[in-house]
Amino acid sequence: MSDTFGTNYQVTVFGESHGTAIGCVIGGLPAGFRIDFNLVRRDLERRAPGRDDTSTSRRESDEFEVLSGIFNDLTTGAPLTAVCRNADTRSRDYTPELPRPGHADLAAAAKYGGFADYRGGGHFSGRLTAPIVFAGSIAKQILRARHGIGIAARIASIHGETDADAQRETILAAKARGDSVGGVIECAASDVPMGWGEPMFRPIETEIAAIMFAIPAVKGVEFGDGFAFTARYGSEVSDGYGLDANGNLVALANHNGGINGGIANGEPVVFRAAIKPTPTISASQKTVNLQMREAVTHSFTGRHDPCIVPRAVPVIECATAIALMQYYII
Amino acid sequence: MSDTFGTNYQVTVFGESHGTAIGCVIGGLPAGFRIDFNLVRRDLERRAPGRDDTSTSRRESDEFEVLSGIFNDLTTGAPLTAVCRNADTRSRDYTPELPRPGHADLAAAAKYGGFADYRGGGHFSGRLTAPIVFAGSIAKQILRARHGIGIAARIASIHGETDADAQRETILAAKARGDSVGGVIECAASDVPMGWGEPMFRPIETEIAAIMFAIPAVKGVEFGDGFAFTARYGSEVSDGYGLDANGNLVALANHNGGINGGIANGEPVVFRAAIKPTPTISASQKTVNLQMREAVTHSFTGRHDPCIVPRAVPVIECATAIALMQYYII
Amino acid sequence: MSDTFGTNYQVTVFGESHGTAIGCVIGGLPAGFRIDFNLVRRDLERRAPGRDDTSTSRRESDEFEVLSGIFNDLTTGAPLTAVCRNADTRSRDYTPELPRPGHADLAAAAKYGGFADYRGGGHFSGRLTAPIVFAGSIAKQILRARHGIGIAARIASIHGETDADAQRETILAAKARGDSVGGVIECAASDVPMGWGEPMFRPIETEIAAIMFAIPAVKGVEFGDGFAFTARYGSEVSDGYGLDANGNLVALANHNGGINGGIANGEPVVFRAAIKPTPTISASQKTVNLQMREAVTHSFTGRHDPCIVPRAVPVIECATAIALMQYYII
Amino acid sequence: MSDTFGTNYQVTVFGESHGTAIGCVIGGLPAGFRIDFNLVRRDLERRAPGRDDTSTSRRESDEFEVLSGIFNDLTTGAPLTAVCRNADTRSRDYTPELPRPGHADLAAAAKYGGFADYRGGGHFSGRLTAPIVFAGSIAKQILRARHGIGIAARIASIHGETDADAQRETILAAKARGDSVGGVIECAASDVPMGWGEPMFRPIETEIAAIMFAIPAVKGVEFGDGFAFTARYGSEVSDGYGLDANGNLVALANHNGGINGGIANGEPVVFRAAIKPTPTISASQKTVNLQMREAVTHSFTGRHDPCIVPRAVPVIECATAIALMQYYII
Repeated sequence: MSDTFGTNYQVTVFGESHGTAIGCVIGGLPAGFRIDFNLVRRDLERRAPGRDDTSTSRRESDEFEVLSGIFNDLTTGAPLTAVCRNADTRSRDYTPELPRPGHADLAAAAKYGGFADYRGGGHFSGRLTAPIVFAGSIAKQILRARHGIGIAARIASIHGETDADAQRETILAAKARGDSVGGVIECAASDVPMGWGEPMFRPIETEIAAIMFAIPAVKGVEFGDGFAFTARYGSEVSDGYGLDANGNLVALANHNGGINGGIANGEPVVFRAAIKPTPTISASQKTVNLQMREAVTHSFTGRHDPCIVPRAVPVIECATAIALMQYYII
Repeated sequence: MSDTFGTNYQVTVFGESHGTAIGCVIGGLPAGFRIDFNLVRRDLERRAPGRDDTSTSRRESDEFEVLSGIFNDLTTGAPLTAVCRNADTRSRDYTPELPRPGHADLAAAAKYGGFADYRGGGHFSGRLTAPIVFAGSIAKQILRARHGIGIAARIASIHGETDADAQRETILAAKARGDSVGGVIECAASDVPMGWGEPMFRPIETEIAAIMFAIPAVKGVEFGDGFAFTARYGSEVSDGYGLDANGNLVALANHNGGINGGIANGEPVVFRAAIKPTPTISASQKTVNLQMREAVTHSFTGRHDPCIVPRAVPVIECATAIALMQYYII
Repeated sequence: MSDTFGTNYQVTVFGESHGTAIGCVIGGLPAGFRIDFNLVRRDLERRAPGRDDTSTSRRESDEFEVLSGIFNDLTTGAPLTAVCRNADTRSRDYTPELPRPGHADLAAAAKYGGFADYRGGGHFSGRLTAPIVFAGSIAKQILRARHGIGIAARIASIHGETDADAQRETILAAKARGDSVGGVIECAASDVPMGWGEPMFRPIETEIAAIMFAIPAVKGVEFGDGFAFTARYGSEVSDGYGLDANGNLVALANHNGGINGGIANGEPVVFRAAIKPTPTISASQKTVNLQMREAVTHSFTGRHDPCIVPRAVPVIECATAIALMQYYII
Repeated sequence: MSDTFGTNYQVTVFGESHGTAIGCVIGGLPAGFRIDFNLVRRDLERRAPGRDDTSTSRRESDEFEVLSGIFNDLTTGAPLTAVCRNADTRSRDYTPELPRPGHADLAAAAKYGGFADYRGGGHFSGRLTAPIVFAGSIAKQILRARHGIGIAARIASIHGETDADAQRETILAAKARGDSVGGVIECAASDVPMGWGEPMFRPIETEIAAIMFAIPAVKGVEFGDGFAFTARYGSEVSDGYGLDANGNLVALANHNGGINGGIANGEPVVFRAAIKPTPTISASQKTVNLQMREAVTHSFTGRHDPCIVPRAVPVIECATAIALMQYYII
């Protein structure tokens, strides 16, 4: 079931970077919901490349056509299918005999006996995050409308820089050298109902982490204080309880990122994802020509982002919404 | 399906810290495999408390009785069930009206309407990692015997200390003050067959992270360079390829922790997990008496570990084996 | 996932006929439910052998011990585990070299490379229906208490006889000859909420049929008019609608067995299951001695039922409850 | 997960009868397989309406466009998506205020709060069997090429008639009267590898029955002797074993339809499905005008088949292939 996420709000993703189309089928939608497709389009635009000089020059259409699941402008409860045809593909940039370092090329060739579509990374391409945004943007709307849940992600750092201007400069400098940089994205979900989540093998952390690692370039996920927990004392990170002016119980801190024992505790769910530097860089890299069986240094010239982090922000927001929808009861 | 992990090697875990028993049912075992129960016992002992003065004084039996799935000392292919009866429980330490900061108490009460077994954390207790070790220790043996896969975890740091003696000192110092510390565990799996893994929603990262966050106290997981990726240039972390003396393709680096596009690339799978400080500490913590509806400071006196990290090492090893077994074809 | 049924109310069944124990783990129980274990025991007794002279002489204990999931006599929301130790096993009746016609012996040996526990059918034994009854009897109570659903099964025919006295006679006559007979069981579930069910691949028919074929000896399942539909005209089996005295819409017939398009339509859900004659009979049967590689005729002397139908009635009732619990929202 | 079938060969089906399109996403395809799309088209044509005067006058295109999963004419291992745009829809035939007896209309309205697409049955339409045929026809090719499995279905009876000419006459006679008839389809799968299948909750019977009941109008499924078992003695239906001329073990009968204990025993897998008469008939039926709240008799004039059985034959064949692919290991 590698292409379907979720048991409750199920998102099946398909397509290849340079194939005919990409898209998704969404099961588990509540019936009678009016999707605001302008909001979906806005999230897709946030993810789209080519918005400014810090991203790839590939222009993607990202116009999704809805094939099923909507009637009289409302969801029907049946699966919603959306398809986006590929355009502006430049497949000549890709050759199967030169596996790109840091990409799935070599591992995929091993797994699929050389039959995988290697053009632009094929099914492994970051382009597949577009249907995740499509499905997740709808999920965000449902969570907002039905439970008042708000989800927002932001760049926490790029190549260690936390200041926005410095971030932009470090990207452009890397781009100028044909190099790339990564960064950290922080995401918070407010008003997740207390009690959402499951013990043992389905904690909220697992649902969120599971879909985060489906996003190419994500190599780490941490909740609340995360790795910083490991340098603190228990007494420093106690999320104690108190009473507010109205006598209601309140948490006095949120080191645990809104989750205890896998269950939402009423505080904002907070996590961070580590995004590695784009592996495709113009600078020469060492690889092997599989046909000639000889070591080469090669400069991969495909269009690529010097830093994928800005485009990953809406992806992480939308993926978080898909994860949380697993606890939503229609 | 919150208590079952996996679709291929399925581990269903049950029990409560102070209930009658804990245990697991393991489906998907290959038939005709001779399990070395001494190795299983050794892993359980590595996890068991009370081995030295750095852990809790609770003495757990951890003697599992096998109820099904073995015939003539070999696996049959039918599910293997193992049960471990609880002993040395001291339930008087636990009261439902005082939710413990950093624990599932409050969230679980919300989720289950106050009916959850709160004694010792009930189903949320770290004690439930014993059946994970049981099932994972068997998984380790199968992976080793059938594929030569070796899995080993180690303490990378405790409260920032990377030296073993310093680690021990920092634990004892925290213990003396009634405080607690966390740390980082690193785990590596060698010889994972190239091509294991899946694209999109079932990458190896997802399988491993999914089970890691099922381990209480794990709050972060990173693969390869993980969060450190975010401060490096793409050119610095290129896992290029070359040829060895025999003309075989070899990777020249392993920044990606043995995984590209979710698929094993032949290099060791490497990841780290962040373990938070034990939330139960003797030092006073702020909480609320739910019955009296008043804010109190309370010193929770239950037996607990000043640092759970050493006991978590075999848990992480065994959980990793369960995750990798999802790609094992009988 | 062959030993776990369900995604909502999950029943994992384990054990072998002549092994240490059989049992089940039940996930997805609502918290705070008081299970009446006397009712569970009564269903288990209805299934138990040796009640009268129409069944096997094996005496099974069927005393289940609950190991988890109950606290203060109420469900906790955590998985409930129940174990029943085997007794009165007589394994000398079984030899692996003589596969029994109509049993899983030969197919299981092929599947598991000869490592399956063959004693009494091992994991394939009808004894495994005891944990299904245990889990389903609880499901019946929940459905009754929370939704007023009533589930009742009855013998529709035995060897074609529909009269109870004739049924008993035909069983005893078959027994006297060392032969066996089968029959049809009809089951109805009243007050299944209109709208329960799913389209496409999860209609109510699929959930019920899926668990029915998990019961050894069930070889056919039909809903409403079932196979009799095929000899009738559409105009004869129209489940038209009308209005009752209060102006409420009512169905005028129930040929479809309470299900349209996979969804409960408010009428009783009605289906029938075909139970084949017990394959183990005292009369000689043709088989092959696998060791000697020679054809033989053999009279299998293990204790067995001349007719399993009466004991299957509570199994089918309880299995139906497990199927319907898949649509129950906690 | 109501719109996805399978864990190994996963078929996600979407669309509505009168919506933009129908289609499917197929996961779990082996890589490097050359699909013969002419064979797929042939199966789709066998299912298509309007081939002769025994079926509906609606002309469906049934031209599927493949959007993903194929590269250089071979499967890639990534999900294959196929879409078929709807044409020749005549939605004016359908009104939501008059629920059609025997259809999902009323139950679907209850389930989805009136938001379901009711035109032509919407997502519940028999039109959704086209993507099942598409995905199953590919499955048939894989099973044939890799395991030599042959799957063939045939009409066993229509309205009780077993002779082909009499069948045709009974259909035309029903059509002339504006009535409809059902029938029985028998399907056999040869050379299913001995050992395929699973015990307990995933027997072959369950996989096959589960997908059969996803086909609209199927109301009964029986394996081997099925319901006829219930009128026979155990001694009459013993599938004994013998040796053939080469000393190989052979089964002497196949009353169990090739399955014992849920596992394939090497004999042909044989089952029958009961197809009810099409519920939409020209003859007047009793229903209720939901808007007016009054009982009416109404003649539903939508184009429909007087007998769906002939068109269901390829659907059942293809659905069987999807079920068996669950045991296929890539």
